[in-house]
Amino acid sequence: MKHGGDLTEAIARHGGEPADWLDLSTGINPWPWTIPHPVPGSAWTRLPSRADEQALLAAAREAYDVPDDADIAAAAGTQALIQWIPYLAGAGAVAIAAPTYGEHSAAWSSGGREIIAVDDLSALPERAIHAVIVNPNNPDGRIADRGALRHVAERLDRRGGWLVIDEAFADVDPAISAAGMSADLPILVLRSFGKFYGLAGLRLGFVIGRRDIVERITAALGPWPVSGPALHLGTAALRDRSWANATRVRLAREAGKLDQVLTAAGLHVVGGTTLFRLASHPDAPALHAELARRHIWCRSFDWAREWLRFGLASDDGLDRLASALHSVR
Amino acid sequence: MKHGGDLTEAIARHGGEPADWLDLSTGINPWPWTIPHPVPGSAWTRLPSRADEQALLAAAREAYDVPDDADIAAAAGTQALIQWIPYLAGAGAVAIAAPTYGEHSAAWSSGGREIIAVDDLSALPERAIHAVIVNPNNPDGRIADRGALRHVAERLDRRGGWLVIDEAFADVDPAISAAGMSADLPILVLRSFGKFYGLAGLRLGFVIGRRDIVERITAALGPWPVSGPALHLGTAALRDRSWANATRVRLAREAGKLDQVLTAAGLHVVGGTTLFRLASHPDAPALHAELARRHIWCRSFDWAREWLRFGLASDDGLDRLASALHSVR
Repeated sequence: MKHGGDLTEAIARHGGEPADWLDLSTGINPWPWTIPHPVPGSAWTRLPSRADEQALLAAAREAYDVPDDADIAAAAGTQALIQWIPYLAGAGAVAIAAPTYGEHSAAWSSGGREIIAVDDLSALPERAIHAVIVNPNNPDGRIADRGALRHVAERLDRRGGWLVIDEAFADVDPAISAAGMSADLPILVLRSFGKFYGLAGLRLGFVIGRRDIVERITAALGPWPVSGPALHLGTAALRDRSWANATRVRLAREAGKLDQVLTAAGLHVVGGTTLFRLASHPDAPALHAELARRHIWCRSFDWAREWLRFGLASDDGLDRLASALHSVR
Repeated sequence: MKHGGDLTEAIARHGGEPADWLDLSTGINPWPWTIPHPVPGSAWTRLPSRADEQALLAAAREAYDVPDDADIAAAAGTQALIQWIPYLAGAGAVAIAAPTYGEHSAAWSSGGREIIAVDDLSALPERAIHAVIVNPNNPDGRIADRGALRHVAERLDRRGGWLVIDEAFADVDPAISAAGMSADLPILVLRSFGKFYGLAGLRLGFVIGRRDIVERITAALGPWPVSGPALHLGTAALRDRSWANATRVRLAREAGKLDQVLTAAGLHVVGGTTLFRLASHPDAPALHAELARRHIWCRSFDWAREWLRFGLASDDGLDRLASALHSVR
């Protein structure tokens, strides 16, 4: 499976309706920020206004602690930004800290760039003009040291390149964010709204960076990149700091409960963030298949067959997972 | 003003709240397709699935009468497609039938292309590899002959180029669509969802064309380009053919009523579609300013100072417009 979060393939192979399935294939918070119904009619009917866009960006600046002298832009999901960046960056190869989320490599490849997979950006090849790192990394949760990232950005700056830091899962631990270094260095911090806020269908993401770089991205995105409902709900959710703080605590607790279920079933938890857990098991492919037959969908990796990634679940969902894992053993 | 539909500038200059203003600056249907509340929670929380995307594209194929051997892709508004096309088209200059909607020129310029403005695509310069036409044209409503468009597409095909036909306002007269010619020629038909269906905030648009070209655009857009609510509502609205048929009749009637108001006030209606009317008046700038002081916002053009463009309005709105125009004279 290429991505989590799409039951189309699971249902085609194993039957059932979406509602029958326990979908643990994503890193999306299953306890979303609650949408205050109804969304105002004008959010659907009118073109988004500049005033609404400015309100969203102001809320995001606060939530993501963006320095005043850095810039920020919004798009219909960070994926839209991942797609554009290779077409806007200066010529040259890109080093990608791998293994990681596959769409960075796909987008740079589609943009005609040479891709150099590296274990660690400290081993930055001379011919790499740009670099990409997901921090914390997906799926293993590895966290890069901020000093090391600054050093990489300084080296790329001398080459005229960019350092893309995909902080899709950084909301659970804001202290790791590189946003504070993005005003003076060619660092592009990507922040996903949908995962932590549990609203992935809304399609909302941000890029934070040096003014000249963000201006180039804003020009490429063109007018009205974000929907009216996403502007409206994103602004309200990003202002809701007490929800965010409580959610960080809750996700840590829920991740601990998931770890207990996995460990009790003989899996070894090898990493992750508090939005997903990565576990290894010698018979992971058989385990994945058997869970799928029971309409439980987790993430497998064709390049790491002993790994499975599990998203968080309600207590009922955890009971169902525990019971399925128990009967498989 | 660069675009209609954004009261931010109007309010900054003339005060008031958005609700005080009669916004006639757009070509968006003010009688939207009615959203069946509530939108299912999963449309907000889950990543859009391939099954949902396929359902939307199937509905769009029917609504836009797309040939089986042509392809179609969806994006977060046709603007997102307008932004990408210049980055994906082969090298070479673009001829744009002008004057027209300004974002085509802006996007090709941002993509580093030479732009050749032409009155009519029949006068296609030899060095133009690509061409863009808005059909019916915005703001004058001019309709290009389909045989002439085919001839242009055939000439561009021999040059390895593309013909972009922006049918943003073609829903009011589907017979003019070039979608039927797009399977065999390098024609990219753009269809806007938000204008005719009155849901511009949703951000939904389509490109119809030859399979190899649409594949290239789909790859550039990447996964999940369209939000869950847009997939859900777009599918339902595009299947609602009786609403579309009734709306065509209604818009024609309402456009006639608007023409009467404009004509009675001494303006001369020079073109448009049934979603907006273009009128000329020797004192158009003064008229625009005086209407703005009365919190009525219409579209002016710095390159055609005698023109004003008016969107449709409710009967109350028309009375307010008539009264304001009467007192200005």
